[in-house]
Amino acid sequence: MAEPLADERLRAARDAAPPLTEAEIAALAAQLPDWRIVERDGERQLERTFRTPDFRSALAFATRVGDLAEAAGHHPALLVEWGRVTVRWWTHQSGGLDRNDFVMAARTDRAWADRNQADR
Amino acid sequence: MAEPLADERLRAARDAAPPLTEAEIAALAAQLPDWRIVERDGERQLERTFRTPDFRSALAFATRVGDLAEAAGHHPALLVEWGRVTVRWWTHQSGGLDRNDFVMAARTDRAWADRNQADR
Repeated sequence: MAEPLADERLRAARDAAPPLTEAEIAALAAQLPDWRIVERDGERQLERTFRTPDFRSALAFATRVGDLAEAAGHHPALLVEWGRVTVRWWTHQSGGLDRNDFVMAARTDRAWADRNQADR
Repeated sequence: MAEPLADERLRAARDAAPPLTEAEIAALAAQLPDWRIVERDGERQLERTFRTPDFRSALAFATRVGDLAEAAGHHPALLVEWGRVTVRWWTHQSGGLDRNDFVMAARTDRAWADRNQADR
């Protein structure tokens, strides 16, 4: 069985790789059904909105994603509102989506699942 | 001397007041020169972007604004990115800007000033 996407190591920015092909993007996106590919400022980004019970819980989840980001050295945009957090991952240097962004999205999903687990 | 805007008590949502007049909005906005009035989804909002040294410090300031929001029972949208936080205050029930939003913007400015103070 293939290694889960969330467990992959990120590729360092210095290890330049060719941009993902459309087929590669489609294959990775298929592993992340809750994420949408959106275009912002001419760059494609991975976006998912997480619903939470209130503002405090939204900020708490944003902080958790921020911790993941710090640990990985790769940072998202986090929009915190009452009852939801919108997370966006992309790689400006790659002009859009890099494999690292899909890995971080998978880690975000895992953090979300773990959070719900802890709430039960 | 008038009470600083940041020290005003918020008006409870149940104490309905007529919408601010344009003159009132202009007078309040003049007290908050670092904030812009923007229109989003048909509602006017107060917006300011704060520059920070990195992602962690951006998230830390967002958390601080979140604490202010929780204490006041009035919540903003917080966009956290590497090196900046964008804060937006508005009152959906009022269809845009309420005096409470200006008070919260003033409190945000004070938290920002206090933060810089603590860094020195």
